[in-house]
Amino acid sequence: MAVYTEVSDEALAAFLSQYDIGTMVAFRGIAEGVENSNYALRTSGGDFILTLYEKRVEVADLPWFLGLMEHLASQGLTCPVPVKAKDGEALRTLCGRAAAITTFLPGVWPRRVRVEHCAPLGQALASLHLAGAGFAATRVNALGPHGWAPLLARAAPDADLVAPGLGDELREALNAILTSWPTDLPRGHIHADLFPDNVFFLDGKVSGLIDFFFAATDLFAYDVAVCLNAWCFEPDFAFNITKGQALLGAYDAIRPLSVAERHALPVLCQGAALRFALTRLYDWINTPAGALVTRKDPMDYVRRLRFHLQARSEHAYGL
Amino acid sequence: MAVYTEVSDEALAAFLSQYDIGTMVAFRGIAEGVENSNYALRTSGGDFILTLYEKRVEVADLPWFLGLMEHLASQGLTCPVPVKAKDGEALRTLCGRAAAITTFLPGVWPRRVRVEHCAPLGQALASLHLAGAGFAATRVNALGPHGWAPLLARAAPDADLVAPGLGDELREALNAILTSWPTDLPRGHIHADLFPDNVFFLDGKVSGLIDFFFAATDLFAYDVAVCLNAWCFEPDFAFNITKGQALLGAYDAIRPLSVAERHALPVLCQGAALRFALTRLYDWINTPAGALVTRKDPMDYVRRLRFHLQARSEHAYGL
Repeated sequence: MAVYTEVSDEALAAFLSQYDIGTMVAFRGIAEGVENSNYALRTSGGDFILTLYEKRVEVADLPWFLGLMEHLASQGLTCPVPVKAKDGEALRTLCGRAAAITTFLPGVWPRRVRVEHCAPLGQALASLHLAGAGFAATRVNALGPHGWAPLLARAAPDADLVAPGLGDELREALNAILTSWPTDLPRGHIHADLFPDNVFFLDGKVSGLIDFFFAATDLFAYDVAVCLNAWCFEPDFAFNITKGQALLGAYDAIRPLSVAERHALPVLCQGAALRFALTRLYDWINTPAGALVTRKDPMDYVRRLRFHLQARSEHAYGL
Repeated sequence: MAVYTEVSDEALAAFLSQYDIGTMVAFRGIAEGVENSNYALRTSGGDFILTLYEKRVEVADLPWFLGLMEHLASQGLTCPVPVKAKDGEALRTLCGRAAAITTFLPGVWPRRVRVEHCAPLGQALASLHLAGAGFAATRVNALGPHGWAPLLARAAPDADLVAPGLGDELREALNAILTSWPTDLPRGHIHADLFPDNVFFLDGKVSGLIDFFFAATDLFAYDVAVCLNAWCFEPDFAFNITKGQALLGAYDAIRPLSVAERHALPVLCQGAALRFALTRLYDWINTPAGALVTRKDPMDYVRRLRFHLQARSEHAYGL
């Protein structure tokens, strides 16, 4: 939950005057998203989200993110659509931050994932992968396999303070994962962070996908692995194979998984678990006391990683 | 900013089924308010706020708060109106917390107070005081003068860690304030916490007052003193007499201040500054590292207190 930058009413009024979306009606900080400042904005023209981009989002990447969202929406995917100002530009500056207004999506993200959420999620993920096809520009996944060794190097000196032996455990896992990492699987634009709080549901259906600020061009099946990690573990860190089957079956029905993608699921899941373990570890060590964000326990993903390291095949996930 | 309690979609659906306000459309945590968990709730019937009452709000007091809000709204004051469920009750339970749905108010609270905000604020405060007249039930102000000595006793042992000599300074101020505290001024229901984030503006007018969970039955002029503290100091802790004049003049035009109330302004302002210094000091000392709320610096109100202690009369405030 986060509002890092407070926007004064004068600054907001001046900002809105650059758009053709009516006059201010309401403006409330949203307690969701840990990377950016988000506001629910209502004008006489409708409902919108105003985002101020904070740390971790590269300003140079914002045109790619906003362009991808616009493209996905044009292909029928329900995601926030960047709203262009009178000058035709969606990406602007407010309070010294890069900022953009996007459309408001209805729906509620699931605080507790149930089996019934997993098939709609799988369908939405496959639809996202297909919808990205016509968007030509690419973005390297900074938090993909090439980014993990540097992340570990930065976090490793303090890893053993979180759990004794954790540094060695992660180093060993990283080496094994990189050695068997697949390179020839189908690629395209992936969300790379499709956690439950980024997926809205309404009446049992996905009503929208949000927060594309980790999106990149990478292996489709890696995105599936991120979702298996984020959606299919129970609070006791047991993998729920019924959820896995629902997610994978629904995905496969829209974008069939190749034999190679299926075989690679264990290592892809290991990599996805490692990626979130590493960024959480880094944040755990580097979040100052009294910060506005709740630190997330890196061990949640270390425990997922351990599950994936003992998975012998894709059958462990319900395939 | 705060959402302390996450509400699952099943729990929310079951909760909404107790009301006649339509079906769920959207549900977002609001990053405002430090005492309770607040959600913006949209249903097919309109927009609402769902509040889960957390620490510091006495559940036994909630019927009084909700009753006061309903009464004030019936008198034409724009404040959140508690929405009754099918059984006629507004106060309910959700996720183990007392909870209520209220109406949504348009407007934006001023992140930076300008002189133009202060007259509308003064009018709104006076209107609130008049509107409360017909509400018979009373509530003792737990954070009024009788509460300050116990608060200081709990915070004093650590006060000198915040600033050397602070414990003695506050004790001395408390004694002086209690000695000259007025008892025979006009009384009624006061907001007692009308800070800028509790006042929405639209087109330069007050569009709503929110957050009545410190409201109590106490001196009207003490509520004025709270507002002078919260609205009329600049970031460098200089009192802005132009803002003070605007606030007091507009208040007085709707509910004339008596001679006794005017004379008492310095000590009332001292008391109001002390009250916020004490609760902030207590929170400063007792907020654990990594908590979801930003601690507010108690010295901000100690510095206001020092200004009020040297004020010789109501003229210091622009009267």
